Amino acid sequence: MINKVVHSQKRILLGIDPGLTTTGFSIIEGIGNKYNIKECGYISYEKTKTIPKKIAQFYDFLNKKIDLFNINEIAIETPFFSKNSATFVKLGYLRSIIYLACEQRSITLHEFAPRSIKQAITGYGNAEKEQVKRAITMLFPQLTQFDIQKYDVTDAIGIALCGLWSKN
Amino acid sequence: MINKVVHSQKRILLGIDPGLTTTGFSIIEGIGNKYNIKECGYISYEKTKTIPKKIAQFYDFLNKKIDLFNINEIAIETPFFSKNSATFVKLGYLRSIIYLACEQRSITLHEFAPRSIKQAITGYGNAEKEQVKRAITMLFPQLTQFDIQKYDVTDAIGIALCGLWSKN
Repeated sequence: MINKVVHSQKRILLGIDPGLTTTGFSIIEGIGNKYNIKECGYISYEKTKTIPKKIAQFYDFLNKKIDLFNINEIAIETPFFSKNSATFVKLGYLRSIIYLACEQRSITLHEFAPRSIKQAITGYGNAEKEQVKRAITMLFPQLTQFDIQKYDVTDAIGIALCGLWSKN
Repeated sequence: MINKVVHSQKRILLGIDPGLTTTGFSIIEGIGNKYNIKECGYISYEKTKTIPKKIAQFYDFLNKKIDLFNINEIAIETPFFSKNSATFVKLGYLRSIIYLACEQRSITLHEFAPRSIKQAITGYGNAEKEQVKRAITMLFPQLTQFDIQKYDVTDAIGIALCGLWSKN
Protein backbone atom coordinates (compact mmCIF):
# COMPACT_ATOMS: atom_id res chain seq x y z
CA MET A 1 0.00 0.00 0.00
CA ILE A 2 1.46 3.35 -1.05
CA ASN A 3 0.24 6.28 1.06
CA LYS A 4 0.41 9.46 -0.94
CA VAL A 5 2.59 11.97 0.93
CA VAL A 6 3.14 15.57 -0.20
CA HIS A 7 6.71 16.85 -0.07
CA SER A 8 7.59 20.53 -0.20
CA GLN A 9 11.19 20.45 -1.43
CA LYS A 10 12.19 19.77 -5.03
CA ARG A 11 12.89 16.16 -5.89
CA ILE A 12 14.25 14.61 -9.06
CA LEU A 13 13.27 11.00 -9.31
CA LEU A 14 14.22 8.39 -11.89
CA GLY A 15 11.79 5.51 -12.37
CA ILE A 16 13.24 2.45 -14.09
CA ASP A 17 11.74 -0.73 -15.49
CA PRO A 18 15.00 -2.60 -16.12
CA GLY A 19 14.86 -5.32 -18.76
CA LEU A 20 17.68 -6.75 -20.86
CA THR A 21 15.58 -6.41 -24.01
CA THR A 22 14.04 -3.02 -23.25
CA THR A 23 14.62 -0.77 -20.26
CA GLY A 24 11.94 1.87 -19.71
CA PHE A 25 12.79 5.01 -17.78
CA SER A 26 11.23 8.29 -16.69
CA ILE A 27 12.65 11.31 -14.94
CA ILE A 28 10.11 13.30 -12.95
CA GLU A 29 10.61 16.49 -11.03
CA GLY A 30 8.31 16.91 -8.08
CA ILE A 31 7.69 20.05 -6.04
CA GLY A 32 4.88 19.79 -3.54
CA ASN A 33 2.09 18.00 -5.34
CA LYS A 34 3.18 19.24 -8.78
CA TYR A 35 4.97 16.83 -11.06
CA ASN A 36 6.78 17.55 -14.25
CA ILE A 37 8.10 14.88 -16.60
CA LYS A 38 11.61 15.98 -17.60
CA GLU A 39 12.27 13.02 -19.86
CA CYS A 40 11.03 9.53 -20.53
CA GLY A 41 11.86 6.81 -22.99
CA TYR A 42 13.56 3.46 -23.26
CA ILE A 43 16.81 1.74 -24.10
CA SER A 44 16.41 -0.95 -26.72
CA TYR A 45 19.42 -3.25 -26.54
CA GLU A 46 20.76 -4.83 -29.69
CA LYS A 47 19.79 -8.49 -29.69
CA THR A 48 23.29 -9.57 -30.69
CA LYS A 49 24.92 -7.75 -27.76
CA THR A 50 26.40 -9.89 -25.00
CA ILE A 51 25.02 -9.50 -21.49
CA PRO A 52 28.24 -7.84 -20.21
CA LYS A 53 27.93 -5.28 -23.03
CA LYS A 54 24.29 -4.60 -22.15
CA ILE A 55 25.21 -4.20 -18.47
CA ALA A 56 28.00 -1.74 -19.34
CA GLN A 57 25.64 0.18 -21.66
CA PHE A 58 23.06 0.44 -18.87
CA TYR A 59 25.76 1.50 -16.36
CA ASP A 60 26.85 4.35 -18.67
CA PHE A 61 23.25 5.38 -19.39
CA LEU A 62 22.30 5.39 -15.71
CA ASN A 63 25.28 7.41 -14.55
CA LYS A 64 24.89 9.95 -17.35
CA LYS A 65 21.23 10.55 -16.46
CA ILE A 66 22.08 10.88 -12.76
CA ASP A 67 24.66 13.55 -13.59
CA LEU A 68 22.59 15.36 -16.18
CA PHE A 69 19.43 15.67 -14.09
CA ASN A 70 20.95 15.66 -10.59
CA ILE A 71 18.82 12.68 -9.72
CA ASN A 72 18.53 12.13 -5.98
CA GLU A 73 16.00 9.30 -5.90
CA ILE A 74 15.44 6.14 -7.92
CA ALA A 75 12.35 3.93 -7.94
CA ILE A 76 12.11 0.34 -9.18
CA GLU A 77 9.77 -2.60 -8.95
CA THR A 78 10.55 -5.59 -6.77
CA PRO A 79 11.33 -8.54 -9.03
CA PHE A 80 8.41 -10.53 -10.29
CA PHE A 81 8.95 -14.29 -10.08
CA SER A 82 7.76 -16.32 -13.00
CA LYS A 83 8.42 -20.01 -13.51
CA ASN A 84 11.43 -19.65 -15.76
CA SER A 85 14.37 -19.83 -13.40
CA ALA A 86 17.00 -18.84 -16.00
CA THR A 87 15.39 -15.41 -16.21
CA PHE A 88 15.74 -14.79 -12.47
CA VAL A 89 19.51 -14.43 -12.57
CA LYS A 90 19.15 -11.99 -15.45
CA LEU A 91 16.64 -9.95 -13.42
CA GLY A 92 19.47 -9.33 -11.00
CA TYR A 93 21.92 -7.93 -13.53
CA LEU A 94 20.56 -4.42 -14.16
CA ARG A 95 19.11 -4.24 -10.66
CA SER A 96 22.65 -4.69 -9.31
CA ILE A 97 23.87 -1.71 -11.35
CA ILE A 98 21.02 0.39 -9.91
CA TYR A 99 21.91 -0.71 -6.36
CA LEU A 100 25.56 0.12 -7.03
CA ALA A 101 24.73 3.63 -8.28
CA CYS A 102 22.44 4.31 -5.31
CA GLU A 103 25.11 3.19 -2.87
CA GLN A 104 28.02 4.96 -4.55
CA ARG A 105 26.14 8.21 -5.03
CA SER A 106 23.94 8.33 -1.92
CA ILE A 107 20.72 8.14 -3.92
CA THR A 108 17.52 7.15 -2.09
CA LEU A 109 16.11 3.91 -3.48
CA HIS A 110 12.41 3.07 -3.53
CA GLU A 111 11.19 -0.44 -4.29
CA PHE A 112 7.55 -1.32 -4.83
CA ALA A 113 5.73 -4.54 -5.53
CA PRO A 114 4.17 -4.49 -9.04
CA ARG A 115 0.72 -4.86 -7.44
CA SER A 116 1.17 -1.77 -5.26
CA ILE A 117 2.16 0.31 -8.27
CA LYS A 118 -0.86 -0.79 -10.29
CA GLN A 119 -3.07 -0.18 -7.26
CA ALA A 120 -1.68 3.33 -6.71
CA ILE A 121 -1.90 4.32 -10.39
CA THR A 122 -5.17 2.74 -11.49
CA GLY A 123 -6.86 1.84 -8.20
CA TYR A 124 -6.71 -1.82 -9.18
CA GLY A 125 -3.83 -4.17 -8.22
CA ASN A 126 -4.34 -6.52 -11.16
CA ALA A 127 -4.58 -3.78 -13.80
CA GLU A 128 -3.30 -4.48 -17.30
CA LYS A 129 -0.42 -2.45 -18.73
CA GLU A 130 -2.87 -0.70 -21.05
CA GLN A 131 -4.88 0.52 -18.04
CA VAL A 132 -1.70 1.84 -16.40
CA LYS A 133 -0.88 3.64 -19.65
CA ARG A 134 -4.35 5.21 -19.85
CA ALA A 135 -4.16 6.43 -16.24
CA ILE A 136 -0.70 7.89 -16.86
CA THR A 137 -1.78 9.77 -19.99
CA MET A 138 -4.72 11.20 -18.08
CA LEU A 139 -2.42 12.41 -15.30
CA PHE A 140 0.04 13.93 -17.78
CA PRO A 141 -1.71 15.34 -20.85
CA GLN A 142 1.61 16.87 -21.98
CA LEU A 143 3.02 13.37 -22.44
CA THR A 144 2.17 13.51 -26.15
CA GLN A 145 5.53 15.22 -26.73
CA PHE A 146 7.28 11.95 -25.77
CA ASP A 147 7.28 8.53 -27.39
CA ILE A 148 5.12 6.52 -24.99
CA GLN A 149 4.17 3.72 -27.38
CA LYS A 150 5.91 1.12 -25.28
CA TYR A 151 4.44 -0.01 -21.97
CA ASP A 152 8.00 -0.01 -20.59
CA VAL A 153 7.83 3.79 -20.68
CA THR A 154 4.40 4.25 -19.08
CA ASP A 155 5.31 1.57 -16.52
CA ALA A 156 8.47 3.53 -15.68
CA ILE A 157 6.41 6.70 -15.23
CA GLY A 158 4.09 4.81 -12.88
CA ILE A 159 7.07 3.54 -10.88
CA ALA A 160 8.54 7.06 -10.61
CA LEU A 161 5.19 8.48 -9.49
CA CYS A 162 4.96 5.91 -6.70
CA GLY A 163 8.42 7.02 -5.59
CA LEU A 164 7.26 10.63 -5.52
CA TRP A 165 4.08 9.74 -3.65
CA SER A 166 5.89 7.70 -1.00
CA LYS A 167 7.89 8.89 1.96
CA ASN A 168 11.35 10.11 1.03
CA MET B 1 34.52 -30.60 -20.84
CA ILE B 2 37.65 -28.50 -20.22
CA ASN B 3 40.57 -29.41 -22.49
CA LYS B 4 43.81 -28.51 -20.78
CA VAL B 5 45.75 -26.13 -23.01
CA VAL B 6 49.30 -24.92 -22.24
CA HIS B 7 49.92 -21.20 -22.75
CA SER B 8 53.40 -19.70 -22.97
CA GLN B 9 52.78 -16.07 -22.01
CA LYS B 10 52.19 -14.90 -18.47
CA ARG B 11 48.58 -14.74 -17.35
CA ILE B 12 47.07 -13.36 -14.17
CA LEU B 13 43.71 -14.90 -13.55
CA LEU B 14 41.16 -14.20 -10.84
CA GLY B 15 38.79 -17.02 -9.93
CA ILE B 16 35.65 -15.96 -8.06
CA ASP B 17 32.90 -17.85 -6.29
CA PRO B 18 30.54 -14.90 -5.74
CA GLY B 19 28.10 -15.26 -2.87
CA LEU B 20 26.35 -12.55 -0.86
CA THR B 21 27.28 -14.29 2.40
CA THR B 22 30.82 -15.30 1.45
CA THR B 23 32.71 -14.61 -1.77
CA GLY B 24 35.73 -16.84 -2.33
CA PHE B 25 38.52 -15.65 -4.59
CA SER B 26 41.93 -16.73 -5.84
CA ILE B 27 44.52 -14.97 -7.95
CA ILE B 28 46.77 -17.31 -9.90
CA GLU B 29 49.69 -16.45 -12.12
CA GLY B 30 50.27 -18.91 -14.91
CA ILE B 31 53.32 -19.17 -17.16
CA GLY B 32 53.39 -22.21 -19.42
CA ASN B 33 52.23 -25.08 -17.25
CA LYS B 34 53.50 -23.49 -14.04
CA TYR B 35 50.98 -21.93 -11.69
CA ASN B 36 51.63 -19.75 -8.71
CA ILE B 37 48.93 -18.69 -6.26
CA LYS B 38 49.49 -14.98 -5.61
CA GLU B 39 46.64 -14.64 -3.16
CA CYS B 40 43.45 -16.38 -2.10
CA GLY B 41 40.82 -15.82 0.52
CA TYR B 42 37.27 -14.68 0.94
CA ILE B 43 35.08 -11.70 1.70
CA SER B 44 32.71 -12.32 4.57
CA TYR B 45 29.91 -9.76 4.37
CA GLU B 46 28.35 -8.44 7.53
CA LYS B 47 24.91 -9.98 7.92
CA THR B 48 23.32 -6.64 8.75
CA LYS B 49 24.62 -5.01 5.55
CA THR B 50 22.05 -4.16 2.90
CA ILE B 51 22.42 -5.75 -0.53
CA PRO B 52 23.38 -2.41 -2.18
CA LYS B 53 26.17 -2.05 0.41
CA LYS B 54 27.41 -5.59 -0.25
CA ILE B 55 27.36 -4.93 -4.00
CA ALA B 56 29.35 -1.71 -3.55
CA GLN B 57 31.82 -3.50 -1.24
CA PHE B 58 32.33 -6.23 -3.85
CA TYR B 59 32.71 -3.62 -6.62
CA ASP B 60 35.50 -1.89 -4.67
CA PHE B 61 37.17 -5.18 -3.76
CA LEU B 62 37.09 -6.43 -7.36
CA ASN B 63 38.46 -3.26 -8.91
CA LYS B 64 41.24 -2.97 -6.32
CA LYS B 65 42.39 -6.54 -6.97
CA ILE B 66 42.27 -5.98 -10.75
CA ASP B 67 44.54 -2.93 -10.35
CA LEU B 68 46.87 -4.43 -7.76
CA PHE B 69 47.56 -7.66 -9.63
CA ASN B 70 47.03 -6.48 -13.22
CA ILE B 71 44.42 -9.15 -13.68
CA ASN B 72 43.67 -9.86 -17.33
CA GLU B 73 41.31 -12.81 -16.98
CA ILE B 74 38.45 -13.72 -14.67
CA ALA B 75 36.83 -17.13 -14.23
CA ILE B 76 33.43 -17.84 -12.67
CA GLU B 77 30.94 -20.67 -12.49
CA THR B 78 27.71 -20.60 -14.45
CA PRO B 79 24.83 -20.13 -12.01
CA PHE B 80 23.50 -23.21 -10.35
CA PHE B 81 19.70 -23.34 -10.25
CA SER B 82 18.12 -24.57 -7.07
CA LYS B 83 14.40 -24.49 -6.35
CA ASN B 84 14.38 -21.30 -4.34
CA SER B 85 13.54 -18.64 -6.89
CA ALA B 86 14.22 -15.67 -4.59
CA THR B 87 17.89 -16.65 -4.55
CA PHE B 88 18.16 -16.52 -8.35
CA VAL B 89 17.89 -12.75 -8.56
CA LYS B 90 20.56 -12.45 -5.89
CA LEU B 91 22.83 -14.75 -7.91
CA GLY B 92 22.79 -12.08 -10.58
CA TYR B 93 23.92 -9.21 -8.36
CA LEU B 94 27.65 -9.91 -7.93
CA ARG B 95 27.80 -11.59 -11.32
CA SER B 96 26.66 -8.32 -12.87
CA ILE B 97 29.53 -6.44 -11.20
CA ILE B 98 31.97 -9.02 -12.60
CA TYR B 99 30.48 -8.64 -16.10
CA LEU B 100 30.72 -4.86 -15.77
CA ALA B 101 34.40 -4.98 -14.77
CA CYS B 102 35.23 -7.38 -17.62
CA GLU B 103 33.49 -5.15 -20.13
CA GLN B 104 34.86 -1.84 -18.83
CA ARG B 105 38.44 -3.10 -18.50
CA SER B 106 38.70 -5.53 -21.42
CA ILE B 107 39.21 -8.54 -19.20
CA THR B 108 38.65 -12.01 -20.69
CA LEU B 109 35.81 -13.82 -18.94
CA HIS B 110 35.63 -17.59 -18.54
CA GLU B 111 32.46 -19.32 -17.41
CA PHE B 112 32.28 -22.97 -16.53
CA ALA B 113 29.49 -25.26 -15.39
CA PRO B 114 30.05 -26.47 -11.80
CA ARG B 115 30.18 -30.06 -13.10
CA SER B 116 32.98 -29.29 -15.57
CA ILE B 117 35.07 -27.72 -12.83
CA LYS B 118 34.67 -30.70 -10.50
CA GLN B 119 35.42 -33.02 -13.41
CA ALA B 120 38.59 -31.12 -14.36
CA ILE B 121 39.87 -30.84 -10.78
CA THR B 122 38.96 -34.22 -9.31
CA GLY B 123 38.15 -36.34 -12.35
CA TYR B 124 34.58 -36.69 -11.10
CA GLY B 125 31.72 -34.34 -12.04
CA ASN B 126 29.70 -35.00 -8.89
CA ALA B 127 32.64 -34.55 -6.49
CA GLU B 128 31.98 -33.07 -3.05
CA LYS B 129 33.57 -29.78 -2.03
CA GLU B 130 35.91 -31.70 0.31
CA GLN B 131 37.21 -33.74 -2.65
CA VAL B 132 37.84 -30.53 -4.61
CA LYS B 133 39.71 -29.14 -1.60
CA ARG B 134 41.86 -32.26 -1.29
CA ALA B 135 42.75 -32.18 -5.01
CA ILE B 136 43.63 -28.48 -4.76
CA THR B 137 45.91 -28.96 -1.74
CA MET B 138 47.69 -31.79 -3.55
CA LEU B 139 48.27 -29.55 -6.58
CA PHE B 140 49.50 -26.67 -4.42
CA PRO B 141 51.43 -27.88 -1.36
CA GLN B 142 52.43 -24.25 -0.62
CA LEU B 143 48.76 -23.42 0.04
CA THR B 144 49.34 -23.93 3.78
CA GLN B 145 50.48 -20.28 3.98
CA PHE B 146 46.88 -19.20 3.17
CA ASP B 147 43.64 -19.64 5.07
CA ILE B 148 41.87 -22.29 3.03
CA GLN B 149 39.46 -23.50 5.70
CA LYS B 150 36.45 -22.39 3.71
CA TYR B 151 35.34 -24.31 0.64
CA ASP B 152 34.61 -20.94 -1.00
CA VAL B 153 38.39 -20.47 -1.23
CA THR B 154 39.33 -23.88 -2.60
CA ASP B 155 36.35 -23.68 -4.98
CA ALA B 156 37.66 -20.31 -6.22
CA ILE B 157 41.10 -21.86 -6.80
CA GLY B 158 39.47 -24.65 -8.79
CA ILE B 159 37.56 -22.12 -10.88
CA ALA B 160 40.74 -20.11 -11.56
CA LEU B 161 42.65 -23.26 -12.55
CA CYS B 162 39.96 -24.16 -15.09
CA GLY B 163 40.38 -20.69 -16.54
CA LEU B 164 44.12 -21.22 -16.83
CA TRP B 165 43.65 -24.64 -18.39
CA SER B 166 41.16 -23.44 -20.95
CA LYS B 167 41.74 -21.52 -24.16
CA ASN B 168 42.41 -17.83 -23.58
